[in-house]
Amino acid sequence: MKNYIVYQNENAIYYECNYSCDNAIFLKLGSESYFFTDSRYEIEAKSALEDVEVIIAKDLLAALIKVLKKSQLKRVTIDPQEWNLGSFKRLKESLPIKFSYKPFFSHKKRMIKSDLELEYLQSAVNIGKNSFRKIAKELAKRSGEDEISLSFLSESILRDYGKRALSFEPILAFSENASKPHAQPTKRALKEGDLVLLDAGVKYKRYCSDRTRTAYFDGTNLSFKKKQHFPNRTIQKAYDTLLKAHDKAIEKARSGMKAKKIDKIAREIIEKAGFGEYFVHSTGHGVGLDIHEMPYISSSSETIIEDSMVFTIEPGIYVEGEFGIRIEDMVVMRHGRAEIL
Amino acid sequence: MKNYIVYQNENAIYYECNYSCDNAIFLKLGSESYFFTDSRYEIEAKSALEDVEVIIAKDLLAALIKVLKKSQLKRVTIDPQEWNLGSFKRLKESLPIKFSYKPFFSHKKRMIKSDLELEYLQSAVNIGKNSFRKIAKELAKRSGEDEISLSFLSESILRDYGKRALSFEPILAFSENASKPHAQPTKRALKEGDLVLLDAGVKYKRYCSDRTRTAYFDGTNLSFKKKQHFPNRTIQKAYDTLLKAHDKAIEKARSGMKAKKIDKIAREIIEKAGFGEYFVHSTGHGVGLDIHEMPYISSSSETIIEDSMVFTIEPGIYVEGEFGIRIEDMVVMRHGRAEIL
Repeated sequence: MKNYIVYQNENAIYYECNYSCDNAIFLKLGSESYFFTDSRYEIEAKSALEDVEVIIAKDLLAALIKVLKKSQLKRVTIDPQEWNLGSFKRLKESLPIKFSYKPFFSHKKRMIKSDLELEYLQSAVNIGKNSFRKIAKELAKRSGEDEISLSFLSESILRDYGKRALSFEPILAFSENASKPHAQPTKRALKEGDLVLLDAGVKYKRYCSDRTRTAYFDGTNLSFKKKQHFPNRTIQKAYDTLLKAHDKAIEKARSGMKAKKIDKIAREIIEKAGFGEYFVHSTGHGVGLDIHEMPYISSSSETIIEDSMVFTIEPGIYVEGEFGIRIEDMVVMRHGRAEIL
Repeated sequence: MKNYIVYQNENAIYYECNYSCDNAIFLKLGSESYFFTDSRYEIEAKSALEDVEVIIAKDLLAALIKVLKKSQLKRVTIDPQEWNLGSFKRLKESLPIKFSYKPFFSHKKRMIKSDLELEYLQSAVNIGKNSFRKIAKELAKRSGEDEISLSFLSESILRDYGKRALSFEPILAFSENASKPHAQPTKRALKEGDLVLLDAGVKYKRYCSDRTRTAYFDGTNLSFKKKQHFPNRTIQKAYDTLLKAHDKAIEKARSGMKAKKIDKIAREIIEKAGFGEYFVHSTGHGVGLDIHEMPYISSSSETIIEDSMVFTIEPGIYVEGEFGIRIEDMVVMRHGRAEIL
């Protein structure tokens, strides 16, 4: 792929040239690179980009069309998932160029992580892990405070009070509220005997971490370690099943395996224990510059797992109105096997 | 428009049915409405939506195609800006339906605000204004702290420590850093004699506010009122010019006028004072469920301004490496004239 456009996709553009912003197009023409943005980003873009020509325009698409016209190029690759119909129509009608469609081409290149990317991801994971420890300590002292204020506190710790960016809005939910996989914080107060689910991640040099733990709060102690004791037998059984599904999926994952095989390993354990209907999402997803990227570890994913791929293993069990449990780690494939980051 | 699809556009879908989430398609077939989402949102969606059929699916597009097939419809309206090429190709190839393209149809319907929407917007503006006062008080006490920590503090106040959502990441920048219209916070510490630019907004019932003030910090006092005294003559001249441009644009705006005429009123005042080259963006943008929506108040916007439209007036002057000033208010058109919200 010699000539291609990356259209209005902040992380995909960052991957190409180590700079990006929320209004940009990147164009690669052989050895030449162009970065189109508007005047708000002129100072930053020009100082960040060395071997890339920065083109400032009000109408980025018009500027792109002008450069492509001048290039007299015959064929250029685009990702049909990135372009909206309206903008693509304008591009196509303005140029005598043939467009090769390569769906998700940027996502596909980004699946295999470089050593430097793996370093960044490991740093993000370490910071995330450390934040979970700090959050557990704080939560343990704050019985009676609600999900809204404790979510904000958790977020403040994850962000180190403004110094760091989050991978996504953290999810903090107690007991019955955790039964929504994407719960919004409510006025529900933390109390003795609650189950506490925390799903959160931070960015390190733009690379994301993602982690979920479910813990028991006895009124005094709260720890996000994997060993947990719940007085409720059903919850304990669900938790142990889930932990087993999580551990086995990691233990048995191999490079060369299809992603759906890994999903199946986790899913079968949960089904056998009778919780199959409560595991309503897929087992995991890739993580990198995007918090959700390839490979997807779902029951239908034919992607072949390879060394240096990074993804989550995060089975979950959700019993509506009662409880929700999820245990999530990020893994990297190394020497054919999955290692927890 | 009897039959239409709103595709993966959270706010546009919310406008249709008063519920939304980050993975959804909305379909209107005459008097019938359908909401497609995945299992993560099943509990919430079903409890929030009464007269709308909620369809839970892994593959939302496949579920939409199924309903459309069954309907035996001949024609349906879509917004070509909402659909990516890849998904639309799948939709088109699966159905014998003709698609009418109406670019930005949801944005267009949402331009004229209802009385209830205006109430919500006024509440958002009031909360935002109040937060600016609190932030000014805090900043005045915190000489020596940097943009990163003071941005976080500003954000915490705007969010009322987790109880409210922001319209966008606030911008807080000091003196030379304010010369980037979309500045990122840095380790630059606040000091006596600084110019302080704050651009921020909050949401009230999902409706956004947006406000910018530029103030002088004398080491002890800081106020975001519009009257400001800068010891530096150039800055004072730029500030007075900008305030005049802002005020005149609001004073002279009329229903029936083209949006570009309002931009011209502000721009001419700035140009006449010799700052034309430093006003690098357009004069304003609509505000509603989206922080940026129609009408756009730019030099090329042919949109006719009408009563009950809401938009910002926010001229700016940015001198690279020296200073940046912006003054922004939200206005509503009432009885033919613009009133500051």
